[in-house]
Amino acid sequence: MRRLRALLREPEVRRSERRFILEGPRPIMGALDRAADIETLFVGPGATDAFSPLVDRARKSGAAIERIKGEAIERISTTRSPQPVFAVAVMPETVESPADLDPSGTLVVTIAINDPGNLGTILRSAEASGAIAVMSCGSAVDPFNPKVVRSSAGAIFGIPVLEVDDPVRALKSLSPNWQRFGAYADAGVRYDSLPLAGGCAVIFGNEAHGISSDLDPFIDQRMTIPLLGLAESLNVAMAASVVCFEAARQRTLKS
Amino acid sequence: MRRLRALLREPEVRRSERRFILEGPRPIMGALDRAADIETLFVGPGATDAFSPLVDRARKSGAAIERIKGEAIERISTTRSPQPVFAVAVMPETVESPADLDPSGTLVVTIAINDPGNLGTILRSAEASGAIAVMSCGSAVDPFNPKVVRSSAGAIFGIPVLEVDDPVRALKSLSPNWQRFGAYADAGVRYDSLPLAGGCAVIFGNEAHGISSDLDPFIDQRMTIPLLGLAESLNVAMAASVVCFEAARQRTLKS
Repeated sequence: MRRLRALLREPEVRRSERRFILEGPRPIMGALDRAADIETLFVGPGATDAFSPLVDRARKSGAAIERIKGEAIERISTTRSPQPVFAVAVMPETVESPADLDPSGTLVVTIAINDPGNLGTILRSAEASGAIAVMSCGSAVDPFNPKVVRSSAGAIFGIPVLEVDDPVRALKSLSPNWQRFGAYADAGVRYDSLPLAGGCAVIFGNEAHGISSDLDPFIDQRMTIPLLGLAESLNVAMAASVVCFEAARQRTLKS
Repeated sequence: MRRLRALLREPEVRRSERRFILEGPRPIMGALDRAADIETLFVGPGATDAFSPLVDRARKSGAAIERIKGEAIERISTTRSPQPVFAVAVMPETVESPADLDPSGTLVVTIAINDPGNLGTILRSAEASGAIAVMSCGSAVDPFNPKVVRSSAGAIFGIPVLEVDDPVRALKSLSPNWQRFGAYADAGVRYDSLPLAGGCAVIFGNEAHGISSDLDPFIDQRMTIPLLGLAESLNVAMAASVVCFEAARQRTLKS
Protein backbone atom coordinates (compact mmCIF):
# COMPACT_ATOMS: atom_id res chain seq x y z
CA MET A 1 0.00 0.00 0.00
CA ARG A 2 2.75 2.39 0.96
CA ARG A 3 4.54 1.45 -2.26
CA LEU A 4 1.46 2.30 -4.37
CA ARG A 5 1.03 5.67 -2.66
CA ALA A 6 4.70 6.39 -3.25
CA LEU A 7 4.51 5.39 -6.91
CA LEU A 8 1.68 7.87 -7.38
CA ARG A 9 3.32 10.72 -5.50
CA GLU A 10 7.09 10.38 -5.70
CA PRO A 11 8.88 10.70 -9.03
CA GLU A 12 12.10 9.26 -7.51
CA VAL A 13 10.31 6.09 -6.47
CA ARG A 14 8.89 5.75 -9.99
CA ARG A 15 12.40 6.16 -11.40
CA SER A 16 14.08 3.71 -9.12
CA GLU A 17 11.41 1.04 -9.59
CA ARG A 18 10.77 1.90 -13.24
CA ARG A 19 7.09 1.50 -12.49
CA PHE A 20 4.18 3.94 -12.43
CA ILE A 21 0.45 3.93 -11.79
CA LEU A 22 -2.50 4.06 -14.15
CA GLU A 23 -5.63 5.31 -12.38
CA GLY A 24 -9.02 4.36 -13.79
CA PRO A 25 -10.16 2.29 -16.76
CA ARG A 26 -9.32 4.68 -19.60
CA PRO A 27 -5.55 4.93 -19.05
CA ILE A 28 -5.44 1.16 -18.51
CA MET A 29 -7.31 0.54 -21.76
CA GLY A 30 -4.99 2.98 -23.55
CA ALA A 31 -2.02 1.05 -22.20
CA LEU A 32 -3.43 -2.33 -23.30
CA ASP A 33 -4.18 -0.90 -26.77
CA ARG A 34 -0.49 -0.10 -27.06
CA ALA A 35 0.70 -3.50 -25.76
CA ALA A 36 2.15 -1.93 -22.62
CA ASP A 37 3.52 -4.11 -19.88
CA ILE A 38 1.04 -4.07 -16.99
CA GLU A 39 2.43 -5.78 -13.94
CA THR A 40 -0.59 -5.79 -11.64
CA LEU A 41 -4.21 -4.77 -12.05
CA PHE A 42 -5.94 -3.86 -8.78
CA VAL A 43 -9.67 -4.40 -8.78
CA GLY A 44 -11.94 -2.84 -6.19
CA PRO A 45 -15.41 -3.87 -5.00
CA GLY A 46 -17.81 -4.49 -7.86
CA ALA A 47 -15.20 -3.73 -10.50
CA THR A 48 -14.68 -7.31 -11.69
CA ASP A 49 -18.18 -7.27 -13.12
CA ALA A 50 -18.31 -3.63 -14.11
CA PHE A 51 -14.99 -3.81 -15.95
CA SER A 52 -14.88 -7.47 -16.96
CA PRO A 53 -13.58 -6.89 -20.54
CA LEU A 54 -10.77 -4.78 -19.10
CA VAL A 55 -9.93 -7.38 -16.45
CA ASP A 56 -9.91 -10.12 -19.10
CA ARG A 57 -7.66 -8.19 -21.42
CA ALA A 58 -5.26 -7.34 -18.60
CA ARG A 59 -5.13 -10.99 -17.48
CA LYS A 60 -4.45 -12.17 -21.05
CA SER A 61 -1.66 -9.62 -21.37
CA GLY A 62 0.03 -11.31 -18.40
CA ALA A 63 -0.94 -8.92 -15.61
CA ALA A 64 -1.51 -10.27 -12.10
CA ILE A 65 -5.02 -9.44 -10.91
CA GLU A 66 -5.38 -8.43 -7.26
CA ARG A 67 -8.47 -7.53 -5.30
CA ILE A 68 -8.35 -4.41 -3.20
CA LYS A 69 -10.75 -2.88 -0.69
CA GLY A 70 -12.64 0.33 -1.34
CA GLU A 71 -11.04 2.12 1.61
CA ALA A 72 -7.58 1.17 0.38
CA ILE A 73 -8.32 2.71 -3.02
CA GLU A 74 -9.51 5.90 -1.33
CA ARG A 75 -6.28 6.11 0.63
CA ILE A 76 -4.03 5.48 -2.35
CA SER A 77 -5.76 7.54 -5.03
CA THR A 78 -4.89 11.07 -6.12
CA THR A 79 -8.37 11.79 -7.46
CA ARG A 80 -11.40 12.95 -5.52
CA SER A 81 -13.74 10.18 -6.60
CA PRO A 82 -11.37 7.35 -7.44
CA GLN A 83 -12.51 4.65 -9.82
CA PRO A 84 -12.27 1.06 -8.61
CA VAL A 85 -9.51 -0.09 -10.96
CA PHE A 86 -5.89 0.90 -11.18
CA ALA A 87 -2.70 -0.70 -12.37
CA VAL A 88 1.03 -0.78 -11.87
CA ALA A 89 2.70 -0.44 -15.28
CA VAL A 90 6.30 -0.89 -16.33
CA MET A 91 7.83 2.29 -17.74
CA PRO A 92 8.28 2.06 -21.48
CA GLU A 93 11.87 1.82 -22.71
CA THR A 94 13.17 5.31 -23.18
CA VAL A 95 15.11 6.51 -26.18
CA GLU A 96 18.53 7.48 -24.93
CA SER A 97 19.55 9.92 -27.60
CA PRO A 98 17.96 11.86 -30.46
CA ALA A 99 20.47 10.10 -32.72
CA ASP A 100 18.28 7.00 -32.34
CA LEU A 101 15.27 8.76 -33.85
CA ASP A 102 14.11 8.74 -37.47
CA PRO A 103 15.99 11.70 -38.99
CA SER A 104 13.11 12.50 -41.34
CA GLY A 105 10.56 12.83 -38.54
CA THR A 106 9.12 15.72 -36.56
CA LEU A 107 10.38 15.92 -32.97
CA VAL A 108 8.38 17.87 -30.38
CA VAL A 109 10.58 19.61 -27.79
CA THR A 110 8.99 21.07 -24.67
CA ILE A 111 10.83 23.26 -22.19
CA ALA A 112 9.83 23.36 -18.53
CA ILE A 113 6.15 22.52 -19.03
CA ASN A 114 4.68 22.70 -15.53
CA ASP A 115 1.05 21.82 -15.95
CA PRO A 116 0.39 18.06 -16.12
CA GLY A 117 -2.68 18.55 -18.33
CA ASN A 118 -0.58 20.49 -20.82
CA LEU A 119 2.19 17.90 -21.01
CA GLY A 120 -0.36 15.08 -21.30
CA THR A 121 -2.20 16.89 -24.09
CA ILE A 122 1.07 17.54 -25.93
CA LEU A 123 1.95 13.82 -25.73
CA ARG A 124 -1.50 12.98 -27.07
CA SER A 125 -1.27 15.43 -29.99
CA ALA A 126 2.29 14.42 -30.78
CA GLU A 127 1.35 10.75 -30.96
CA ALA A 128 -1.89 11.29 -32.89
CA SER A 129 -0.21 13.57 -35.44
CA GLY A 130 2.62 11.13 -36.12
CA ALA A 131 5.51 12.97 -34.47
CA ILE A 132 8.48 10.69 -33.74
CA ALA A 133 9.08 11.60 -30.09
CA VAL A 134 8.64 14.21 -27.38
CA MET A 135 11.74 15.60 -25.70
CA SER A 136 10.87 17.15 -22.33
CA CYS A 137 13.59 19.50 -21.06
CA GLY A 138 14.22 21.73 -18.10
CA SER A 139 12.44 21.59 -14.79
CA ALA A 140 9.19 20.11 -16.04
CA VAL A 141 6.42 18.01 -14.56
CA ASP A 142 7.30 14.30 -14.53
CA PRO A 143 5.80 12.60 -17.62
CA PHE A 144 4.81 9.66 -15.39
CA ASN A 145 2.87 11.89 -12.99
CA PRO A 146 -0.66 10.41 -12.78
CA LYS A 147 -2.31 13.55 -14.18
CA VAL A 148 0.03 13.61 -17.16
CA VAL A 149 -0.64 9.92 -17.73
CA ARG A 150 -4.40 10.47 -17.56
CA SER A 151 -4.49 13.39 -19.98
CA SER A 152 -2.12 11.65 -22.40
CA ALA A 153 -4.95 9.11 -23.00
CA GLY A 154 -2.48 6.28 -23.54
CA ALA A 155 0.06 8.29 -25.53
CA ILE A 156 2.66 7.91 -22.77
CA PHE A 157 2.98 4.35 -24.13
CA GLY A 158 2.59 5.31 -27.79
CA ILE A 159 5.36 7.83 -28.37
CA PRO A 160 8.92 7.83 -27.03
CA VAL A 161 9.65 10.45 -24.37
CA LEU A 162 13.21 11.70 -23.93
CA GLU A 163 13.98 13.63 -20.80
CA VAL A 164 16.91 16.03 -20.75
CA ASP A 165 17.58 18.30 -17.79
CA ASP A 166 19.42 21.07 -19.55
CA PRO A 167 17.55 22.69 -22.48
CA VAL A 168 20.81 23.98 -23.98
CA ARG A 169 22.28 20.51 -24.02
CA ALA A 170 18.98 19.18 -25.42
CA LEU A 171 18.91 21.60 -28.33
CA LYS A 172 22.63 21.15 -29.01
CA SER A 173 22.18 17.38 -29.11
CA LEU A 174 19.92 17.51 -32.15
CA SER A 175 21.31 16.54 -35.52
CA PRO A 176 22.67 19.54 -37.47
CA ASN A 177 20.41 18.42 -40.31
CA TRP A 178 17.39 19.17 -38.16
CA GLN A 179 15.98 22.66 -38.26
CA ARG A 180 14.97 23.90 -34.82
CA PHE A 181 11.74 25.90 -34.99
CA GLY A 182 10.86 27.73 -31.78
CA ALA A 183 7.26 28.80 -31.05
CA TYR A 184 6.81 32.40 -29.87
CA ALA A 185 3.59 34.19 -29.06
CA ASP A 186 4.54 37.44 -30.71
CA ALA A 187 7.33 37.13 -33.22
CA GLY A 188 8.36 34.84 -36.01
CA VAL A 189 7.30 33.60 -39.40
CA ARG A 190 3.95 31.93 -39.82
CA TYR A 191 4.15 28.35 -38.64
CA ASP A 192 2.42 27.07 -41.75
CA SER A 193 5.03 28.64 -44.04
CA LEU A 194 7.77 26.42 -42.57
CA PRO A 195 8.73 22.93 -43.71
CA LEU A 196 7.38 21.03 -40.71
CA ALA A 197 6.90 17.69 -42.41
CA GLY A 198 10.14 16.15 -41.39
CA GLY A 199 13.68 16.47 -40.20
CA CYS A 200 12.82 19.21 -37.75
CA ALA A 201 12.23 19.99 -34.10
CA VAL A 202 9.28 22.14 -33.02
CA ILE A 203 10.02 23.76 -29.69
CA PHE A 204 7.54 25.03 -27.09
CA GLY A 205 8.42 26.95 -23.94
CA ASN A 206 7.14 27.22 -20.40
CA GLU A 207 3.53 28.30 -19.82
CA ALA A 208 4.42 31.62 -18.17
CA HIS A 209 7.78 32.51 -19.68
CA GLY A 210 7.88 30.93 -23.13
CA ILE A 211 11.31 30.07 -24.55
CA SER A 212 14.10 31.72 -22.56
CA SER A 213 16.37 34.11 -24.47
CA ASP A 214 19.35 31.99 -23.35
CA LEU A 215 18.23 29.58 -26.02
CA ASP A 216 18.30 32.12 -28.88
CA PRO A 217 21.55 30.71 -30.32
CA PHE A 218 19.98 27.27 -30.55
CA ILE A 219 16.79 28.28 -32.36
CA ASP A 220 17.20 28.31 -36.14
CA GLN A 221 13.88 29.97 -36.87
CA ARG A 222 11.21 31.63 -34.77
CA MET A 223 7.67 30.70 -35.70
CA THR A 224 4.31 32.02 -34.58
CA ILE A 225 0.64 31.18 -34.93
CA PRO A 226 -1.04 34.40 -36.08
CA LEU A 227 -3.86 35.30 -33.71
CA LEU A 228 -6.92 37.35 -34.48
CA GLY A 229 -9.23 39.40 -32.31
CA LEU A 230 -7.90 40.45 -28.94
CA ALA A 231 -6.47 37.06 -28.09
CA GLU A 232 -2.97 37.49 -26.72
CA SER A 233 -1.78 33.94 -26.81
CA LEU A 234 -2.82 30.35 -27.00
CA ASN A 235 -2.33 27.85 -24.25
CA VAL A 236 0.88 25.93 -24.99
CA ALA A 237 -0.96 22.63 -25.42
CA MET A 238 -3.30 24.16 -28.01
CA ALA A 239 -0.38 25.79 -29.83
CA ALA A 240 1.50 22.49 -29.91
CA SER A 241 -1.60 20.67 -31.19
CA VAL A 242 -2.07 23.18 -34.00
CA VAL A 243 1.60 22.96 -35.04
CA CYS A 244 1.70 19.14 -34.77
CA PHE A 245 -1.33 18.76 -37.03
CA GLU A 246 0.04 21.28 -39.52
CA ALA A 247 3.14 19.05 -39.66
CA ALA A 248 0.90 16.02 -40.24
CA ARG A 249 -0.97 17.89 -42.99
CA GLN A 250 2.28 18.81 -44.73
CA ARG A 251 3.54 15.22 -44.43
CA THR A 252 0.52 13.85 -46.28
CA LEU A 253 0.84 16.53 -48.98
CA LYS A 254 4.42 15.41 -49.59
CA SER A 255 3.62 11.74 -49.92
CA MET B 1 -22.20 37.80 -0.11
CA ARG B 2 -25.01 35.41 -0.74
CA ARG B 3 -25.55 37.07 -4.12
CA LEU B 4 -21.90 36.54 -5.09
CA ARG B 5 -21.99 32.88 -4.09
CA ALA B 6 -25.17 32.45 -6.12
CA LEU B 7 -23.71 34.20 -9.17
CA LEU B 8 -20.82 31.75 -9.07
CA ARG B 9 -22.91 28.65 -8.56
CA GLU B 10 -26.35 29.17 -10.07
CA PRO B 11 -26.80 29.63 -13.79
CA GLU B 12 -30.40 30.86 -13.29
CA VAL B 13 -29.22 33.66 -11.02
CA ARG B 14 -26.64 34.67 -13.62
CA ARG B 15 -29.38 34.71 -16.29
CA SER B 16 -31.87 36.71 -14.29
CA GLU B 17 -29.30 39.28 -13.18
CA ARG B 18 -27.36 39.19 -16.46
CA ARG B 19 -24.21 39.28 -14.36
CA PHE B 20 -21.43 36.76 -13.75
CA ILE B 21 -18.19 36.48 -11.80
CA LEU B 22 -14.58 36.72 -12.91
CA GLU B 23 -12.28 34.99 -10.42
CA GLY B 24 -8.65 36.08 -10.26
CA PRO B 25 -6.58 38.67 -12.11
CA ARG B 26 -6.24 36.97 -15.50
CA PRO B 27 -9.93 36.76 -16.42
CA ILE B 28 -10.38 40.34 -15.19
CA MET B 29 -7.48 41.55 -17.33
CA GLY B 30 -8.90 39.63 -20.30
CA ALA B 31 -12.23 41.37 -19.75
CA LEU B 32 -10.66 44.83 -19.53
CA ASP B 33 -8.63 44.14 -22.69
CA ARG B 34 -11.94 43.56 -24.47
CA ALA B 35 -13.63 46.68 -23.02
CA ALA B 36 -16.06 44.55 -21.02
CA ASP B 37 -18.41 46.16 -18.56
CA ILE B 38 -17.15 45.42 -15.05
CA GLU B 39 -19.61 46.51 -12.44
CA THR B 40 -17.64 45.89 -9.24
CA LEU B 41 -14.10 44.82 -8.51
CA PHE B 42 -13.63 43.18 -5.11
CA VAL B 43 -10.18 43.56 -3.64
CA GLY B 44 -8.94 41.39 -0.78
CA PRO B 45 -6.19 41.99 1.78
CA GLY B 46 -2.93 43.12 0.19
CA ALA B 47 -4.36 43.03 -3.32
CA THR B 48 -4.57 46.81 -3.84
CA ASP B 49 -0.78 46.91 -3.88
CA ALA B 50 -0.17 43.55 -5.50
CA PHE B 51 -2.60 44.26 -8.34
CA SER B 52 -2.47 48.04 -8.53
CA PRO B 53 -2.36 48.29 -12.36
CA LEU B 54 -5.42 46.05 -12.53
CA VAL B 55 -7.27 48.06 -9.89
CA ASP B 56 -6.41 51.30 -11.71
CA ARG B 57 -7.60 49.98 -15.05
CA ALA B 58 -10.83 48.68 -13.53
CA ARG B 59 -11.48 52.02 -11.80
CA LYS B 60 -10.86 53.94 -15.03
CA SER B 61 -13.24 51.65 -16.87
CA GLY B 62 -15.97 52.73 -14.45
CA ALA B 63 -15.98 49.78 -12.05
CA ALA B 64 -16.78 50.33 -8.38
CA ILE B 65 -13.91 49.13 -6.19
CA GLU B 66 -14.87 47.37 -2.96
CA ARG B 67 -12.67 45.94 -0.26
CA ILE B 68 -13.43 42.45 0.96
CA LYS B 69 -12.03 40.33 3.78
CA GLY B 70 -9.95 37.24 3.19
CA GLU B 71 -12.43 34.92 4.91
CA ALA B 72 -15.24 36.26 2.75
CA ILE B 73 -13.27 35.45 -0.39
CA GLU B 74 -12.65 31.93 0.90
CA ARG B 75 -16.35 31.45 1.47
CA ILE B 76 -17.39 32.79 -1.93
CA SER B 77 -14.74 31.27 -4.16
CA THR B 78 -15.03 28.10 -6.22
CA THR B 79 -11.26 27.54 -6.32
CA ARG B 80 -9.11 25.87 -3.71
CA SER B 81 -6.63 28.68 -3.24
CA PRO B 82 -8.63 31.73 -4.28
CA GLN B 83 -6.81 34.82 -5.46
CA PRO B 84 -7.62 38.06 -3.69
CA VAL B 85 -9.37 39.82 -6.59
CA PHE B 86 -12.62 39.04 -8.31
CA ALA B 87 -15.23 40.99 -10.20
CA VAL B 88 -18.88 41.13 -11.11
CA ALA B 89 -19.18 41.58 -14.87
CA VAL B 90 -22.16 42.40 -17.06
CA MET B 91 -22.96 39.64 -19.56
CA PRO B 92 -22.03 40.66 -23.08
CA GLU B 93 -24.90 41.29 -25.48
CA THR B 94 -25.83 38.03 -27.10
CA VAL B 95 -26.50 37.57 -30.78
CA GLU B 96 -30.09 36.51 -31.11
CA SER B 97 -29.98 34.74 -34.44
CA PRO B 98 -27.37 33.36 -36.83
CA ALA B 99 -28.95 35.66 -39.42
CA ASP B 100 -27.16 38.52 -37.63
CA LEU B 101 -23.74 36.97 -38.28
CA ASP B 102 -21.34 37.70 -41.12
CA PRO B 103 -22.41 35.22 -43.82
CA SER B 104 -18.83 34.81 -45.05
CA GLY B 105 -17.49 33.78 -41.65
CA THR B 106 -16.77 30.48 -39.93
CA LEU B 107 -19.23 29.59 -37.18
CA VAL B 108 -18.25 27.07 -34.51
CA VAL B 109 -21.18 24.93 -33.33
CA THR B 110 -20.80 22.78 -30.21
CA ILE B 111 -23.31 20.18 -29.10
CA ALA B 112 -23.71 19.29 -25.43
CA ILE B 113 -20.15 20.06 -24.37
CA ASN B 114 -20.07 19.11 -20.69
CA ASP B 115 -16.57 19.89 -19.56
CA PRO B 116 -16.05 23.57 -18.68
CA GLY B 117 -12.36 23.43 -19.66
CA ASN B 118 -13.33 22.14 -23.09
CA LEU B 119 -15.94 24.83 -23.74
CA GLY B 120 -13.57 27.54 -22.48
CA THR B 121 -10.77 26.28 -24.72
CA ILE B 122 -13.11 26.15 -27.72
CA LEU B 123 -14.15 29.78 -27.08
CA ARG B 124 -10.49 30.75 -26.86
CA SER B 125 -9.53 28.98 -30.09
CA ALA B 126 -12.60 30.26 -31.90
CA GLU B 127 -11.80 33.86 -30.96
CA ALA B 128 -8.06 33.59 -31.64
CA SER B 129 -8.61 31.97 -35.04
CA GLY B 130 -11.06 34.62 -36.18
CA ALA B 131 -14.29 32.59 -36.13
CA ILE B 132 -17.40 34.79 -36.09
CA ALA B 133 -19.25 33.16 -33.18
CA VAL B 134 -19.75 30.03 -31.12
CA MET B 135 -23.18 28.44 -31.01
CA SER B 136 -23.54 26.20 -27.96
CA CYS B 137 -26.44 23.73 -28.29
CA GLY B 138 -28.02 20.97 -26.31
CA SER B 139 -27.59 20.35 -22.62
CA ALA B 140 -24.17 21.92 -22.27
CA VAL B 141 -22.22 23.55 -19.48
CA ASP B 142 -23.20 27.20 -18.98
CA PRO B 143 -20.75 29.45 -20.88
CA PHE B 144 -20.75 31.82 -17.88
CA ASN B 145 -19.73 29.07 -15.46
CA PRO B 146 -16.58 30.32 -13.67
CA LYS B 147 -14.41 27.48 -14.99
CA VAL B 148 -15.50 28.14 -18.58
CA VAL B 149 -14.82 31.84 -18.07
CA ARG B 150 -11.36 31.10 -16.67
CA SER B 151 -10.29 28.75 -19.43
CA SER B 152 -11.68 31.05 -22.12
CA ALA B 153 -8.92 33.53 -21.09
CA GLY B 154 -11.13 36.52 -21.90
CA ALA B 155 -12.67 35.08 -25.06
CA ILE B 156 -16.11 34.98 -23.43
CA PHE B 157 -16.06 38.76 -24.03
CA GLY B 158 -14.32 38.57 -27.41
CA ILE B 159 -16.58 36.34 -29.48
CA PRO B 160 -20.39 36.21 -29.56
CA VAL B 161 -21.92 33.12 -27.96
CA LEU B 162 -25.35 31.96 -29.13
CA GLU B 163 -27.14 29.44 -26.98
CA VAL B 164 -29.79 27.20 -28.51
CA ASP B 165 -31.39 24.39 -26.54
CA ASP B 166 -32.35 22.15 -29.40
CA PRO B 167 -29.49 21.09 -31.70
CA VAL B 168 -31.92 20.28 -34.54
CA ARG B 169 -33.39 23.75 -34.36
CA ALA B 170 -29.87 25.19 -34.14
CA LEU B 171 -28.63 23.44 -37.29
CA LYS B 172 -31.87 24.18 -39.15
CA SER B 173 -31.56 27.85 -38.30
CA LEU B 174 -28.34 28.28 -40.25
CA SER B 175 -28.43 29.97 -43.63
CA PRO B 176 -28.86 27.51 -46.52
CA ASN B 177 -25.76 29.12 -48.03
CA TRP B 178 -23.71 27.80 -45.14
CA GLN B 179 -22.24 24.35 -45.44
CA ARG B 180 -22.51 22.37 -42.22
CA PHE B 181 -19.36 20.32 -41.59
CA GLY B 182 -19.64 17.83 -38.75
CA ALA B 183 -16.53 16.48 -37.00
CA TYR B 184 -16.40 12.70 -36.50
CA ALA B 185 -13.63 10.64 -34.95
CA ASP B 186 -13.77 7.86 -37.48
CA ALA B 187 -15.48 8.81 -40.71
CA GLY B 188 -15.50 11.66 -43.14
CA VAL B 189 -13.32 13.53 -45.57
CA ARG B 190 -10.11 15.10 -44.38
CA TYR B 191 -10.87 18.37 -42.62
CA ASP B 192 -8.17 20.20 -44.54
CA SER B 193 -9.70 19.26 -47.91
CA LEU B 194 -12.87 21.23 -47.11
CA PRO B 195 -13.49 24.91 -47.78
CA LEU B 196 -13.42 26.09 -44.17
CA ALA B 197 -12.47 29.67 -44.82
CA GLY B 198 -15.93 31.12 -44.76
CA GLY B 199 -19.63 30.69 -45.07
CA CYS B 200 -19.63 27.49 -43.10
CA ALA B 201 -20.37 25.95 -39.73
CA VAL B 202 -17.95 23.50 -38.12
CA ILE B 203 -19.79 21.24 -35.71
CA PHE B 204 -18.38 19.35 -32.71
CA GLY B 205 -20.29 16.85 -30.58
CA ASN B 206 -20.38 15.80 -26.95
CA GLU B 207 -17.19 14.46 -25.32
CA ALA B 208 -18.50 10.92 -24.86
CA HIS B 209 -21.04 10.52 -27.64
CA GLY B 210 -19.94 12.77 -30.48
CA ILE B 211 -22.63 14.06 -32.85
CA SER B 212 -25.87 12.13 -32.40
CA SER B 213 -27.20 10.30 -35.46
CA ASP B 214 -30.47 12.27 -35.11
CA LEU B 215 -28.55 15.13 -36.60
CA ASP B 216 -27.46 13.25 -39.74
CA PRO B 217 -30.00 15.05 -41.97
CA PHE B 218 -28.59 18.40 -40.88
CA ILE B 219 -24.92 17.65 -41.56
CA ASP B 220 -23.92 18.42 -45.15
CA GLN B 221 -20.50 16.81 -44.94
CA ARG B 222 -18.71 14.65 -42.40
CA MET B 223 -15.11 15.60 -41.74
CA THR B 224 -12.37 13.96 -39.76
CA ILE B 225 -8.86 14.69 -38.57
CA PRO B 226 -6.74 11.71 -39.66
CA LEU B 227 -4.96 10.23 -36.66
CA LEU B 228 -1.75 8.26 -36.67
CA GLY B 229 -0.29 5.73 -34.30
CA LEU B 230 -2.72 4.04 -31.92
CA ALA B 231 -4.51 7.22 -30.97
CA GLU B 232 -8.24 6.66 -31.10
CA SER B 233 -9.47 10.18 -30.87
CA LEU B 234 -8.58 13.71 -29.93
CA ASN B 235 -10.14 15.59 -27.08
CA VAL B 236 -12.94 17.76 -28.54
CA ALA B 237 -11.20 21.00 -27.58
CA MET B 238 -8.01 19.95 -29.37
CA ALA B 239 -10.01 18.85 -32.43
CA ALA B 240 -11.86 22.17 -32.52
CA SER B 241 -8.58 24.09 -32.15
CA VAL B 242 -7.01 22.20 -35.06
CA VAL B 243 -10.05 22.78 -37.30
CA CYS B 244 -10.40 26.46 -36.29
CA PHE B 245 -6.76 27.18 -37.15
CA GLU B 246 -7.02 25.30 -40.44
CA ALA B 247 -9.94 27.63 -41.24
CA ALA B 248 -7.76 30.62 -40.30
CA ARG B 249 -4.94 29.29 -42.49
CA GLN B 250 -7.28 28.90 -45.47
CA ARG B 251 -8.71 32.37 -44.91
CA THR B 252 -5.27 33.99 -45.19
CA LEU B 253 -4.45 31.96 -48.30
CA LYS B 254 -7.59 33.33 -49.94
CA SER B 255 -6.88 36.96 -49.15
